[in-house]
Amino acid sequence: MNSFPKELEELIKNLSEFPGIGRRSAERIAFHILKMEKNKVEKLSQLITKVHKYIKPCKICNNFSTQEICSICSDPKRNKEIVCIVEEPKDILAIEKTSHYKGVYYALLGSISPLEGIGPENLNIRKLINRLEKGEIREVIISTDPDTEGELTAQFLIEKISPYKVKIYRIGIGIPLGTQIEYIDSATLKRAFMEKKPLT
Amino acid sequence: MNSFPKELEELIKNLSEFPGIGRRSAERIAFHILKMEKNKVEKLSQLITKVHKYIKPCKICNNFSTQEICSICSDPKRNKEIVCIVEEPKDILAIEKTSHYKGVYYALLGSISPLEGIGPENLNIRKLINRLEKGEIREVIISTDPDTEGELTAQFLIEKISPYKVKIYRIGIGIPLGTQIEYIDSATLKRAFMEKKPLT
Repeated sequence: MNSFPKELEELIKNLSEFPGIGRRSAERIAFHILKMEKNKVEKLSQLITKVHKYIKPCKICNNFSTQEICSICSDPKRNKEIVCIVEEPKDILAIEKTSHYKGVYYALLGSISPLEGIGPENLNIRKLINRLEKGEIREVIISTDPDTEGELTAQFLIEKISPYKVKIYRIGIGIPLGTQIEYIDSATLKRAFMEKKPLT
Repeated sequence: MNSFPKELEELIKNLSEFPGIGRRSAERIAFHILKMEKNKVEKLSQLITKVHKYIKPCKICNNFSTQEICSICSDPKRNKEIVCIVEEPKDILAIEKTSHYKGVYYALLGSISPLEGIGPENLNIRKLINRLEKGEIREVIISTDPDTEGELTAQFLIEKISPYKVKIYRIGIGIPLGTQIEYIDSATLKRAFMEKKPLT
């Protein structure tokens, strides 16, 4: 015996392609599947195809949606003139959990990443630009991550959006609430000083 | 929007139940599935049910097998009188890769773990004891992991097997090849001294 049974080996190979899952983790997951109850395995298998089949990007904002237009874009109570630009739909969920924001979103489904060969031309902004051209947007809040990729993306978005008559904001960056300054990394601390806000 | 679409949320929940996969990793895997090609998703989904359906423990040794009896137990060239006892089938694969061992195996499918509430009574040794009672085994090599659970299990196995007329071995424990003594943890080093072997 020089390898596991063929099907098992193939499953492990498939699982290894998941992000953050190496050969070892894939093996552990495969062994776990072998030990699972039959009905749970069938449910998981069905969920995988179902999710892939029914959940598609919203035609307006790229948010996850089982409909053509997602629940946020189709909500008449949301202000369509204010657009928060995020990298991924999961960022939308995080912001929604604050129950504070009443505008709509636009998910880029990525960010500029020279290391991964993703340049500005690969960024999915066509639908956003269309809305800007039609004058449908009054305000954008660029909420890409405060890391290298997110900041590069924010810079690029500022350039692209500036020609239109809209207010452009960047989400506040600085030290997070509930932390102690002594434990904050110096890059954040430096940035927090650059972002200091006058109180008087 | 207070959560992802229902199906996606459900898939994430199911994936979080995998060993070593938390909520965050489960989300990343689910998003990855959303972006996968249709045929790859279908193949993965099928593999999961197929593996669960066709791969069962070997009736003799508990190794992974698509047959009632695994390829090792049914190999006439293997010496059935020598049994290497391991915790899991993946350990069998690791030992097989050395191409050195010509006996057969017995996988316990676990180890004694007081922390997880797994006592000696939960250890799957019935089939092994049956073979010992029938006098089919001449030699066992206890190859459980050299950690707390594996050592406890080895102790228990020694007690259980001693009444039978078999030679009992423990796999060699000590400093691994290709390492430098200065970097070996002191528990291993201490054990290596206890396991020192006379050369003359």
